[in-house]
This record gives sequence, C-alpha cells and structure tokens, in this order.
Amino acid sequence: MRKYLSVIICLMAMGASAQENHKPEDTEYLTPVPNVVTPGKGTAAPSDAVVLFDGTDLKNWETKDGKPAAWAMADKAVTVSKGDIQTKQKFTNFQLHIEWRTPAEVKGESQQRGNSGIFLQDRYELQVLDNYNNKTYTNGQAGSIYKQSRPLVNACLPPGEWQIYDVIYTAPVFGKNGDLIVKARVTVLQNGVLVQNGTEIRGTTEYIGQPKVEAHGAAPIRLQDHGNPVSYRNIWIREL
Amino acid sequence: MRKYLSVIICLMAMGASAQENHKPEDTEYLTPVPNVVTPGKGTAAPSDAVVLFDGTDLKNWETKDGKPAAWAMADKAVTVSKGDIQTKQKFTNFQLHIEWRTPAEVKGESQQRGNSGIFLQDRYELQVLDNYNNKTYTNGQAGSIYKQSRPLVNACLPPGEWQIYDVIYTAPVFGKNGDLIVKARVTVLQNGVLVQNGTEIRGTTEYIGQPKVEAHGAAPIRLQDHGNPVSYRNIWIREL
Amino acid sequence: MRKYLSVIICLMAMGASAQENHKPEDTEYLTPVPNVVTPGKGTAAPSDAVVLFDGTDLKNWETKDGKPAAWAMADKAVTVSKGDIQTKQKFTNFQLHIEWRTPAEVKGESQQRGNSGIFLQDRYELQVLDNYNNKTYTNGQAGSIYKQSRPLVNACLPPGEWQIYDVIYTAPVFGKNGDLIVKARVTVLQNGVLVQNGTEIRGTTEYIGQPKVEAHGAAPIRLQDHGNPVSYRNIWIREL
Amino acid sequence: MRKYLSVIICLMAMGASAQENHKPEDTEYLTPVPNVVTPGKGTAAPSDAVVLFDGTDLKNWETKDGKPAAWAMADKAVTVSKGDIQTKQKFTNFQLHIEWRTPAEVKGESQQRGNSGIFLQDRYELQVLDNYNNKTYTNGQAGSIYKQSRPLVNACLPPGEWQIYDVIYTAPVFGKNGDLIVKARVTVLQNGVLVQNGTEIRGTTEYIGQPKVEAHGAAPIRLQDHGNPVSYRNIWIREL
Repeated sequence: MRKYLSVIICLMAMGASAQENHKPEDTEYLTPVPNVVTPGKGTAAPSDAVVLFDGTDLKNWETKDGKPAAWAMADKAVTVSKGDIQTKQKFTNFQLHIEWRTPAEVKGESQQRGNSGIFLQDRYELQVLDNYNNKTYTNGQAGSIYKQSRPLVNACLPPGEWQIYDVIYTAPVFGKNGDLIVKARVTVLQNGVLVQNGTEIRGTTEYIGQPKVEAHGAAPIRLQDHGNPVSYRNIWIREL
Repeated sequence: MRKYLSVIICLMAMGASAQENHKPEDTEYLTPVPNVVTPGKGTAAPSDAVVLFDGTDLKNWETKDGKPAAWAMADKAVTVSKGDIQTKQKFTNFQLHIEWRTPAEVKGESQQRGNSGIFLQDRYELQVLDNYNNKTYTNGQAGSIYKQSRPLVNACLPPGEWQIYDVIYTAPVFGKNGDLIVKARVTVLQNGVLVQNGTEIRGTTEYIGQPKVEAHGAAPIRLQDHGNPVSYRNIWIREL
Repeated sequence: MRKYLSVIICLMAMGASAQENHKPEDTEYLTPVPNVVTPGKGTAAPSDAVVLFDGTDLKNWETKDGKPAAWAMADKAVTVSKGDIQTKQKFTNFQLHIEWRTPAEVKGESQQRGNSGIFLQDRYELQVLDNYNNKTYTNGQAGSIYKQSRPLVNACLPPGEWQIYDVIYTAPVFGKNGDLIVKARVTVLQNGVLVQNGTEIRGTTEYIGQPKVEAHGAAPIRLQDHGNPVSYRNIWIREL
Repeated sequence: MRKYLSVIICLMAMGASAQENHKPEDTEYLTPVPNVVTPGKGTAAPSDAVVLFDGTDLKNWETKDGKPAAWAMADKAVTVSKGDIQTKQKFTNFQLHIEWRTPAEVKGESQQRGNSGIFLQDRYELQVLDNYNNKTYTNGQAGSIYKQSRPLVNACLPPGEWQIYDVIYTAPVFGKNGDLIVKARVTVLQNGVLVQNGTEIRGTTEYIGQPKVEAHGAAPIRLQDHGNPVSYRNIWIREL
C-alpha cells in the first residue's frame, strides 16, 4: 500500500519544480550511526565513561610531581589533604560529573570557607566553595569560572550536603602565534540548575591580574588543595 | 592593619608600571549578586522554576486552538491522547526538565514505535522515540533535533522505563528582513548523557523538505501526538 | 525524457533504503530568495546601506542631549570638536563601514595620541587611536574592544593616513533578569586585516573597573570626543 | 603631580570596599603585544600574508595528484583549464582574500553559468558563480556555502567584472570518535558586503545527499574546475 502511495507521489512530483518534489526520505541521514551508551542509574557513570574515582582508590590520580595521590579516603569519598591532585590521563573535550561536599561545621567566611576548585585542563578553575549564606565576590562564588564568570544563580546546598557539578567542556583552539582562535566553552549544571551556559573562557585562572593565554594540548583534571577539608566522590568523565 | 598594608602597596605601586601592581581585589566583581535558587532533590523542580506539570492537573496546558488540554492522567503522569498540547505560557530562553516513557509493550518499528516530540518554541522538535534496539534514520533518533541534528550517542533506556531530558535553549535572533542573524542553540542531556552540545538550529522542523526560517517571539512548549501512547511527567522550566 | 527517468528512479527507490536514492535536487532550497544588493565601488556604500555620513552634512547625527551635531567639516571629513556625537537612528545587528584619520602631526603618547572611539550600540567601544609606533596597553590599542579584547595584530597605518574599520556586529540578548544570555559578537577588519574575530563582548566599556551588564535594545552609533582632533569620513551601515 | 593624585586616590580607596577602589590600570593588559602587520594598499596583501598567487606563476599550486598546476595565465590572472588545482601548503584557521571573474560573454543558466568554487580545507565549498540576473537555488548562489547555507544577500557584480571574497575561517574540531565537536565557522564579505556571518559548516560539501563528517587536519585551498572559464587573481592568505 505504501509503495503504491509512493508511486502516486512520485508521479505527481514529476510535473512540479524541484523543491516541491521533496519526499520525507530526502532529509533522512542513515550514517554514521551514533554509538549506543547505557546511561547510569541516577548519577552513576554511563557505560562509555572513564571512572576517575568510584570510592575505591586513587589509582587514576597523582600529584603535580607525578607521585601517588595521597588524599584521605573514607565512605567512598576522598578529602583534600596536602597538595593538589590531578588525573594521570589527559583530556581535551569532555563531559564531567563530579560531586563535592564542604565541611558540615562552618569555619571562616568568604573565600576561607570550604574552598577548593576543579581545574579543567589544569588551567581553568571551576570554583568549589561553601557559598551557602556566605557572601563573597560574585566571580568567586561556587559555580563561577573563578575570577572570570559568575554563576547565573547561586544554586548551593547547605554545608555538609553532597553537591553535583555536571560539566560540558570544549577545549580552546590556538593559532600559529599561540593566539586564542576559538575560546574554550563550558556549560555547568550545579545540582541540576544551570550556572554556566556555554561560557567562553578568556584564559588561565589567575588570582592576581588578568587571564593569560597559553597554548596547550590535552591536560589533566586537577583538584585544588585550598587548605579546607572539602570532599569529592563519584567522579566520571566522558571524552567527546 | 590591612589598611596600612594597602598604603604600602599603593605607594609601591606608584613607582612601577601598571600591570605588575595588580592586587587580587582588582579582578573581583561585587555586583550584580546572582539570585539564590534552592535546587530540587534529585530531579525535583528548583525554587525558581515554573512547574508545568507535577502530576496533578493540566491547567498550564491547552490545545493549539486554546481549548483545555485533555490528555489522560494516571500515576502522576499524562499520556498522549488526541492532538498536541502546549503550554499556555510562552517562553524565550530557558532550561527545561521533562521526563518521558514509551510503552512497555513494543509495537511497530523505526518511527512507528513510541514516537512523540517536544517542540521548543512551538517549532523546533526534540525527538521522543522508543529508540532502544530500534533502527531508524539517525536524525530521527531519540535525542535528535528532528531531521536536523542526530544525537551524539544513543542514550536510550528500554521501553517502559522513565527517561529524562534536560534541555538548555536560547532562542533565535531575527534581523530586519526576517533573516536568522543568531541561530537558536540547544544542549540536551538524555538520562544524564550529553546528546546535543550547543547545537545550532537551522530553522523549523519539517517532515518534508528543508528547515524554514520564520521570525517569531516567545512561544509555547508543545508536546506532540504522533499516535503512540507516550507518557510524560515532572515537567518544569526555568526562564533564563 | 526527464520525466521517464524520474519514474524509473522513483520505482527503483521504492525497493531500496532512503539515503541511497538521493537526487541533487533534494538538497536545493528555492526560497527565500536573498535580496539583491549592488556593491559599492571600492569602499563606497552598497545599495542597501544607510549612509550615515558622506561628507555633506551631519543631519543623521546629534549630541547626547539631542542637539544638532556640530563637529567641524572639511574635505568630505568631519573632525572631533566638542562632545560626543551619535546617530539619530538606532541599530541592533549591523555591518558598519567607517574611515578615520589621526592627526599627521604627532602629539602625546600612549592613550594621549590621536584617541577617539566608536561606541557600538552606545556602550561598547571599538578603540580609535594613533597606534603607529606608539606603545600602550594591549587592550587599549587601535582595533581593541577597549579594556576587553586586544586586537589580533596591530594593523595601523601612519598618522595622517585614512584608515578603515569594517565591523560586523550582533547585539547581546538579555534574559528575564537582565542576565546576558547571549553575548554581543563583533568581527573587525582594520585596513583589510582581521583584528577581532567574532569576539564576545562581556559588557559595557568601562574606564575603571569591570564591564557592566545592562539590558538594552536598539541604540545609536556614538563617536567619542577624547580631546584629540581625529577625523572621520565615509560612514555607512547595513542593518542585518 | 600624577603621583600625588595617585596617593590621594589610594588613601581614599582604603576606606571603601574592594571594587570601588579600582584604578584604570587594573584593567590594562601589557602582554602579549600583538604583532605589527603592515596593511596592503587597497586589496594588496598585508605584510604577514602568504601570497598564493600574484599573477606571476603557479608555483604554490598543484593538481590533486601532486603534479604542477597548469591553468592558463594572462594579465596577472589565471583561468580554469583542466582539473582542480590546490595549494601545496595546508592551512587550518585563516583569513583569505581571493578575486574572481566570470566570463563577460554569458553562456548557460543557473549552475551552468560561470561556475567554479573555492574549497576551504579541501572540503567546504564557497560557491563561485555568475549569479547576476541568473536564477538558481538559493544555497547554490554565489557566496553560499554550497548546498548548506545561502548568502544573506546577492551581492554579485555583472559578468566580466572582478569580484572579491574576503573570508574568515576557523577549522572544525573533531572528538575522539571523529564527531564534530566544534563546527567550522566562516564569515564572507563579497565585494565588501556581508554574505556569511560566522556560519557554522555542517560537514563536507556534497552534490547529492547530506554533508558528511570526516575528521581531518590542516588541508589545502582548492579551486574547482566546473567546466567554465572562470578566472582568479590576487590570492593571499593569513594564517590565524
């Protein structure tokens, strides 16, 4: 039946000009077929993710000097101890899931309370901070690209609760002179709420002065030791 | 004490050239302060969301003709019945959360199995389909912008299971002649897996022929009746 | 003959899968037909441009207070006199052509030499400066988005020579809270050399402090009086 | 005097909160200093350009098989002869200037009149066509990204006249699976009129069927032999 209908459509089409003859199939792509990925339950890692930390060990992590990562582990979480740690594997474009918790006992204020950070490609800091009823400068808030782009909203949970960052990141492209030809872009959901929407990253995160442009390739994810016992868990990444 | 330090820094600075004198505060923004939003637990709506459907009623929905939406409700879900339904409220830029389920009993194949769709701004279809072990054209898969952009991966759950779309959408900008000056952009996570990454939308979703460009303003979210009993639940939206 | 061929193709197509049957016409668009524009000779205005200044008068310009623009005119050029002037017409998305000349007699250095500026939508300054053998901060150079984005290269001509900016600009999009949902973008060619490539504009040009975000609609082109006798000529704009 | 002013400003600043203390210098970048480029006169090559063809010889060009390019030269121009020719050098991100002329004597219609093309990175065709009073499908017009994106306007000059394309191109970025993570973008001015504005390129130019995605690195500029004696001259490129 469908074939006859097609014949009729075809015959009708022949008397008309090009675009009017279009069939539904004309705009159907058959290849390449997207890979099948099994989603995780809730916030669990999808089947194609690299699990960076599942609570068992820190074998995928090291210090900046290439020594074994030695942050304290307990209850499937790892807590900032002494010095930054970073992934052994290097990444370019990715989707990252990471959960973090600031101490239930509140100490300090502004940037001194539950401060840590997630450095994308080792250079661009997605701020981690106990920012619940804690005033600080807006581009230093949790969910900010530190010193560059404040979060769209403050979507923080109270101290002591686990919070989630879902991050979509595309790396910068550098030109022949090391110029930033295409800026890195980052989208961040904090606890399911959009806080960065395809934000362009202007350069490296600098505490003092302006972002710097330095050409680089694939690079690790780095977790910052800012002196506060912030914890992390359930870290996975999907290379794009 | 801090004041005297500042005096010293100031005095030192005056003899030197500009950029070397930077203080951390120079790159701190104080305003505007981002609004505080209380995230929902799990997939629940954040405090600033418009809850479009929470399982209670369809008071926020209507038919294309402005009549009451009359899809069947049961177990906090609503199921495609007769004709499309759309939100009474119109939206421009937004974050949308929506959950959907195709029938547990599999019938039909390709586009005939568990087919529905979510029309962003009434024109741009994010495809809903039982695409689990179901071959179809790639730009007609679940997670595609129908007939325009296939999903990065196939992140479908089996039929009968609830699936999630988290959508970030910015509207197109039209020029004086109705030209598409800035294309709409959409990012979609399906069950937590990235399937569209800031994808530009070329124009309206067309079953036959190419996307069309038509200037428009704020517009509803529309759910498609494609003849299959697909269900929806837990629909909320945050205007950006 | 072509009809029979089509019949055959149609019949063949029905037994086969979709994509292999594509014909060239399937991907041809017939509408909408782009408007015809007659290009100008050399740097003259195209037929669809609004000519803002052709050397005759300043009838399309006014002061910030709405008074007649009173800059000095000579030799088809206008020279900065007293106070900024701006277009009476407001613009959103546009292509702008503008020519400028800094004084042949060099006075001052850094930002004190041949300084003026072109404010896009009254807020975002494309810097004009005698930057030929004149050191200044990089994001204050000619071709910079002042205080935000340095030019890719220094493409300046010597003082006293006419220089050209060709500017492509799309306006920012603001969200319901006045957030910057889509940033303005600007591409600039200086004397035919690319100096800004789709650069995102972070907010208003501020001499002191960081760019500010303020929601706005269509707005004038404004030329800055920075106290130096910079001249302008041949200014035209095409609304996009 | 300026020093004392700074002292006063500093002292005043100390009583206030951080952002109010900002000095103009805080937002001045000193490095890196943009390279100096000497613009060309009119449409001549800037000092940092690679001159691909200046009318003298075709030493920078070859056939697809790596044989010497053998198109006919006369009057500082080269005319399509037999087979495509492409640059020996490969390019990634660039600004390209190229001039072209369709035959003064009009023959054929639609795509049969003065047809050639400029393949960016050997894959993405910027259409060249005698499109002056010559109707054809919109995404096959001069200034189109062939079969993908029609020009914003038809800015063609009459047959027999030299026309100019100024092209700004950033290359696509491919992910680990060969996915198109960041699309190529192209801006084109035809005879000084904007015809493509940061247009995303969806994939390879295909005469039949949809664009294909194929991962690639640096690649040549290729000029198409479409059987019509189209001429080219004054071709230069600046790597970004």
